[in-house]
Amino acid sequence: MAVKTYAIVGTGAVGGYYGAKLARCGLDVHFLARGDYRHIRDHGLAIESKDGDFLLPHVNVYDDADRMPACDVVAVALKTTANGILPSILQKILKKDGVVLVMQNGLGWEERIAKTVSPRAVLGVLCFICVSKIGPGRIRHQDFGHVTMAQHTSDGSASGITSQIREIAGDFTKAGISVQMSPDLGTARWKKLVWNVPYSGLSVVLSAATDAINKNPDSRALAAALMEEVGEGARACGHPIEQSFVNQMLEYTDRMIPYVPSMRLDFDNRRHMEVESIFGEPVRAAQKAGAKVPLMEMLYRELKFLDEEKVTVSKS
Amino acid sequence: MAVKTYAIVGTGAVGGYYGAKLARCGLDVHFLARGDYRHIRDHGLAIESKDGDFLLPHVNVYDDADRMPACDVVAVALKTTANGILPSILQKILKKDGVVLVMQNGLGWEERIAKTVSPRAVLGVLCFICVSKIGPGRIRHQDFGHVTMAQHTSDGSASGITSQIREIAGDFTKAGISVQMSPDLGTARWKKLVWNVPYSGLSVVLSAATDAINKNPDSRALAAALMEEVGEGARACGHPIEQSFVNQMLEYTDRMIPYVPSMRLDFDNRRHMEVESIFGEPVRAAQKAGAKVPLMEMLYRELKFLDEEKVTVSKS
Repeated sequence: MAVKTYAIVGTGAVGGYYGAKLARCGLDVHFLARGDYRHIRDHGLAIESKDGDFLLPHVNVYDDADRMPACDVVAVALKTTANGILPSILQKILKKDGVVLVMQNGLGWEERIAKTVSPRAVLGVLCFICVSKIGPGRIRHQDFGHVTMAQHTSDGSASGITSQIREIAGDFTKAGISVQMSPDLGTARWKKLVWNVPYSGLSVVLSAATDAINKNPDSRALAAALMEEVGEGARACGHPIEQSFVNQMLEYTDRMIPYVPSMRLDFDNRRHMEVESIFGEPVRAAQKAGAKVPLMEMLYRELKFLDEEKVTVSKS
Repeated sequence: MAVKTYAIVGTGAVGGYYGAKLARCGLDVHFLARGDYRHIRDHGLAIESKDGDFLLPHVNVYDDADRMPACDVVAVALKTTANGILPSILQKILKKDGVVLVMQNGLGWEERIAKTVSPRAVLGVLCFICVSKIGPGRIRHQDFGHVTMAQHTSDGSASGITSQIREIAGDFTKAGISVQMSPDLGTARWKKLVWNVPYSGLSVVLSAATDAINKNPDSRALAAALMEEVGEGARACGHPIEQSFVNQMLEYTDRMIPYVPSMRLDFDNRRHMEVESIFGEPVRAAQKAGAKVPLMEMLYRELKFLDEEKVTVSKS
């Protein structure tokens, strides 16, 4: 099989880190960047990683999808609030038999993207990683880094482990990325939410990093209660998550190097947050399926208020 | 009946405003102050009020309860977080047959105070007022101003309208304060919480004044849901509040001149907030009585975190 070409749409923390790993191992990777385009073109991508720093000096970087080649695999690593630009980009750079990887948080995007690129395959790639952009073309990988990969199906049922999953997982593994292949995208997405909902949300409302949330008994109890509700939502939506997983997430975060989730960085920098993907969609899905998720809904409303009223300076 | 002597313990916004009204109408009022003592002694109390500004140039003000006369009525207007100093103060300045007025927010203080001053009468005075201290000895009365007065009983049952309530209400009315006499302290306290819980709490977590909370559809829905839960708690505790009252509170706040609750002023100035009185006590009382109050509990935990982790600069 020929070496696949990859496009990375959105060269931020996640896109920059995983794209650089793929490029470093010899894959043909093309990065779409915005603000950092010139810097990456002139200086490359610099990765500070707990697994060893590295520089990718020569990067195929573009500031315009029109100049990019059509690729076998397009990895979407935009902030979901920018996903409106995806259809026109995918039309230009995704090969006829290509695959889309949705490397984003929250619920609902594989379904929407699949509708615009059908019948091409859409995979969700869930990134369990603490990574931040600390400057133009400069990314700090602080902790973890493994991904879960699963395939979207039109009816939301479990796909099993498909050939597309195996192929992409093979490339990721070759690039030194730890991959778990999952037969059921829905379950994988809800499992990721067990972490994202409490820590992304509370990091904003309480202006706190993961260690502060876990240390204080009240915020720790809140995080645990939110995790339970995400579990309720998952169950109601037909994606039961074993209780042990929910329990483990608190301890997993105890062991994490103190981390400021990207939602909090967005808020602190007065950028819009991924409120709908991580909170709105799951709350609506859970309630539609008959689950009661009052705490998730409260956090959703708090974040929506903060996003609408506090993010843009000129607005208030 | 002889003219009663009043002591005001805590000459902040509430104590300063109501005390000045009582003194202006000729009652013998003695103020206990802390930081503002010298300023009030030298310059008096200045009230900027929507009902007309006035200055009380000569004020019986003290910085030490030891120098105060024993009084017929002691009005407690401290922030509840300072209530630890009350027993020794009341022992000094409350006459043998005196009355204590608890002019504070939240639940539980009449009961505790009654234990230390028994068998003397303890009344709750609930202040529906937008008032702030804007400088030493300078108080701005922005909106509303009426009070509800009710009497504590050792078993929490309704006292009816007692002679003590009538006497004190007479003085307040003479001073131009609108008074509602209530036969049931428990119901009166829970009714006040219908407003305090959503607006004090959300003003801190969302960093917003009353108008912003009411205008945004998500925070408005949250406020309404919190009011409903306070109603649930009240009902479970044997103090049913008519649904129309709960509904009216949103509209009452719509008509209010935009107001920053004192809890938010405390937080912004890194002073401890009245988290236990306004949130902890009601949540525990509601849960003990079998009510489910998940949103109140979530707000309580958020505020407790903020109070513990964010209030003192040196702590983090």
